[in-house]
Amino acid sequence: MEYRRIKDQDKNEASVDDIESSHMKAVPVLSLDDAGSLNTVATVGASSGDRSKWKRKSMVTLALTVLTSSQGILIVWSKRAGKYEYSVTTANFLVEALKCALSLAALMRIWRKDGVTDDNRLSTTYDEVSVYPIPAALYLVKNLLQYYIFAYVDAPGYQILKNFNIISTGVLYRIILKRRLSEIQWAAFILLCAGCTTAQLNPRSDHVLQTPVQGWLMAIVMALLSGFAGVYTEAIIKKRPSRNINVQNFWLYVFGMVFNAIAIVVQDFDEVVSKGFFHGYSLITVLMILNHALSGLAVSMVMKYADNIVKVYATSVAMLLTAIVSVFLFGFHLSLAFFLGSTVVSVSVYLHSVGKLQR
Amino acid sequence: MEYRRIKDQDKNEASVDDIESSHMKAVPVLSLDDAGSLNTVATVGASSGDRSKWKRKSMVTLALTVLTSSQGILIVWSKRAGKYEYSVTTANFLVEALKCALSLAALMRIWRKDGVTDDNRLSTTYDEVSVYPIPAALYLVKNLLQYYIFAYVDAPGYQILKNFNIISTGVLYRIILKRRLSEIQWAAFILLCAGCTTAQLNPRSDHVLQTPVQGWLMAIVMALLSGFAGVYTEAIIKKRPSRNINVQNFWLYVFGMVFNAIAIVVQDFDEVVSKGFFHGYSLITVLMILNHALSGLAVSMVMKYADNIVKVYATSVAMLLTAIVSVFLFGFHLSLAFFLGSTVVSVSVYLHSVGKLQR
Repeated sequence: MEYRRIKDQDKNEASVDDIESSHMKAVPVLSLDDAGSLNTVATVGASSGDRSKWKRKSMVTLALTVLTSSQGILIVWSKRAGKYEYSVTTANFLVEALKCALSLAALMRIWRKDGVTDDNRLSTTYDEVSVYPIPAALYLVKNLLQYYIFAYVDAPGYQILKNFNIISTGVLYRIILKRRLSEIQWAAFILLCAGCTTAQLNPRSDHVLQTPVQGWLMAIVMALLSGFAGVYTEAIIKKRPSRNINVQNFWLYVFGMVFNAIAIVVQDFDEVVSKGFFHGYSLITVLMILNHALSGLAVSMVMKYADNIVKVYATSVAMLLTAIVSVFLFGFHLSLAFFLGSTVVSVSVYLHSVGKLQR
Repeated sequence: MEYRRIKDQDKNEASVDDIESSHMKAVPVLSLDDAGSLNTVATVGASSGDRSKWKRKSMVTLALTVLTSSQGILIVWSKRAGKYEYSVTTANFLVEALKCALSLAALMRIWRKDGVTDDNRLSTTYDEVSVYPIPAALYLVKNLLQYYIFAYVDAPGYQILKNFNIISTGVLYRIILKRRLSEIQWAAFILLCAGCTTAQLNPRSDHVLQTPVQGWLMAIVMALLSGFAGVYTEAIIKKRPSRNINVQNFWLYVFGMVFNAIAIVVQDFDEVVSKGFFHGYSLITVLMILNHALSGLAVSMVMKYADNIVKVYATSVAMLLTAIVSVFLFGFHLSLAFFLGSTVVSVSVYLHSVGKLQR
């Protein structure tokens, strides 16, 4: 299988300790083995390389958390401002295009500064680029499935079922990337899933238990697709540790644009032709597109300098932060379930960090 | 303070490795130091003494779990059969009397078999017996407070606030008995509290957040009283490891009878005089009294051979078992919150056992 091939090449390359010619210079690259876990305790006597790796990992994780929480707040804001009237597929396309443009801009700065090298040149080989369409294709299939699952589950129920993503990411991370979590970290991961779901409970949540079996199966398939896309992206990005992240992003997002263009044609072609591409766009739509683009870049950075597990923790904590900020911004009331879920998620974060495997 | 004195005597006695002349013969006593935790993994190469200690600890824990779950089922059954029409204070008195009688019966068997020794004689000294009324007095105060808290909280809200007991037991166990839990075991204890509360959530649970500050304070005081009574009972029982548990129980329950007699006079005197002591008793009342008496004895055994932490875990797991058995017996529906809470409790039990302090 394709992802196996990637993994095998990884192993060969992992021994080559090459230095990344990134715009963050003088920072040793993360090899596949040490992009470990949400370690919040600086190791005593660690080398300055370890410390700056840890700093970079913390920075990208923090950026992802902040961007994801503000994303949640923008969604709440837009819902309160009125219905979504723009086409979601065109907005998704613009998000990919913006990410592409931002990666290119970053690359141009690097070229001006460091010159074009093997690691930061945009041109690529078939061997390198052939795997890049896969995550975008997986997300496309997942997004198409999303339209069908609502025949079986309502939107709040789907929000709850989406927490399967946490488990599927953990399992696929273990199977595909062959990275190990300690038993306590696995326990923490189950708690993260239970805690996030608890925090989202509302008096109507029990409806989800009446979901027909097709709904459960689709939710599981979607969780696997989404988890697989995430883990596969990490495999692609980490496969060439020395390759500049902006080049890797550029190619990922080019295929993202292609697949989102397909989605526009499949789902919204008539509407876009009759009403125009930007129909219904408002200031808030623009802000959401900008935020999604920046969050997407932060996810890539987390994949490069940390891993999918860190990504899941960051986005889960962001979900809780969104709710807390919404109390102040929109006068939301927090439920008892939210407090209980947040407690469980906090303990999970703690356990993940103390449960680190001793290497 | 009184409990400090007990603790200091403990320290002196803990070094004396005396053998208990219990009816469970040839089983070395638990010293204060090794009545550890819910350890479910038999240590490889442990002595046969360790193994039989572990077996006895497991037996009493299992007995407590089964008795507590069936207690929950009896309560559900009696609620469905109709309102409580008997006086709760007279029933509590009979529970204490029955426990007293059962302890005496067990003692008489032991005397016939082993003869009367220093450890199993019923007569006692002022020094030994002076602390025995304290837990019973604490429970009396707590039960009286219970009538006042309902001015601020409704019954389902009170069920949720009662989970403070878990935290108060853990904290007082640490402070009073000076026993240590590892960091992971503390995390597990917080999860146990959050998980139990989550499992009890229902669509109206959020009302509890509107509890006035007096209600919160009373709930906290009641949790402290109940936790203190539990921990103090353990201190009393473990203070004299060689003393037969049935003698210790006999004296504890004698004072239980006295304090429950006071409660009858304070709360139900007129009713008992006019309607009679056994007014409203039915088969189910008798079964509940029997079950409470046996559960009470199991709690004492857990205090002697394990500890308060094991007791809290056993009764929490029993709460979940009650709900599951009620599905089959009474056609109850389990909520999503119940599944999530049970998951968190299960992970907590696991973490408590893997998080054991290395000694």
